[in-house]
Amino acid sequence: MGKVLWHATISLDGFIAGPHDAMEWVFEHAGPNPAAERVTAETGALLVGRRSYDVARMVPAGIPQFVLTHRTPDATPEGVTFLSGEVMYAVSAALAAAGKKDLVVLGANVAKQCLSAGLVDEILVHVAPLLLGEGLPFYRRAGSAMQLEPLEVSQAGAVTNLRFRVKKRATNSERP
Amino acid sequence: MGKVLWHATISLDGFIAGPHDAMEWVFEHAGPNPAAERVTAETGALLVGRRSYDVARMVPAGIPQFVLTHRTPDATPEGVTFLSGEVMYAVSAALAAAGKKDLVVLGANVAKQCLSAGLVDEILVHVAPLLLGEGLPFYRRAGSAMQLEPLEVSQAGAVTNLRFRVKKRATNSERP
Repeated sequence: MGKVLWHATISLDGFIAGPHDAMEWVFEHAGPNPAAERVTAETGALLVGRRSYDVARMVPAGIPQFVLTHRTPDATPEGVTFLSGEVMYAVSAALAAAGKKDLVVLGANVAKQCLSAGLVDEILVHVAPLLLGEGLPFYRRAGSAMQLEPLEVSQAGAVTNLRFRVKKRATNSERP
Repeated sequence: MGKVLWHATISLDGFIAGPHDAMEWVFEHAGPNPAAERVTAETGALLVGRRSYDVARMVPAGIPQFVLTHRTPDATPEGVTFLSGEVMYAVSAALAAAGKKDLVVLGANVAKQCLSAGLVDEILVHVAPLLLGEGLPFYRRAGSAMQLEPLEVSQAGAVTNLRFRVKKRATNSERP
């Protein structure tokens, strides 16, 4: 069974988007990056938040995409499944679709829900070389500190890739 | 003349302290770290915020320390200078005291002021392997994104060291 990987590009000060969802800086730093290309090759399915779905709108060909949302749109594009409710069922469905490959989670809110439910195995961040000072935080949840274990550090251009394993707490480490 | 270096330990999600100034996690990850030891060897003076001064209270022997504060305490410990007012004058005084060595800036608020005034040359962060989810942000200032240039990446135990040069804007790059 594949892993659940939270994948994000962050500023050094921990934002995944600037004010008004500004993400040009992410695309500016999306040059050739072996660590990101490896993720793409190992992705069996995507679980994305509604905000990420609306903002990014990139559905890689042939990769099933699950969108966690309470606002199901009228049209459902090919390859996209909209789900609402418990995040654990969304993860179950998306992991099943991923087969032996990984489930990649995109979007701060859905990732936070997965993390709280003990469902994230690894985190890969690309640290872009800037301070934003404001915007959408990478992780914001009171009383929910999470310990990580570094797996890999690499550089690609001006970007630094940091990969971590999430140290699971015994009480909620079971897969749904 | 030495450089002005902002030195901090941050969580992966960009906090320098947890709720209620919690910093145990910083000390837990303060094991042997050549990048940090190099900074100590090259430090000629410290410029610290009042909060950092109150919380950390570590005055390395023989290193002059400048504290930017509006609340000057009654007693002034040996080697400590309290200043209020414009950050550029504090930086001038501290740089002069540093001689040919570096001026190290500690504390999010004073560092932010220095950065906005175009006075920070480099940033060294030690990324501790955890997500805090809440606390005192490393950098928070609306409308003040800053571009950085990566200089060095290294690991020490579970900590990742990232060193950057601050790309100065032409308008405010002059030293006081």
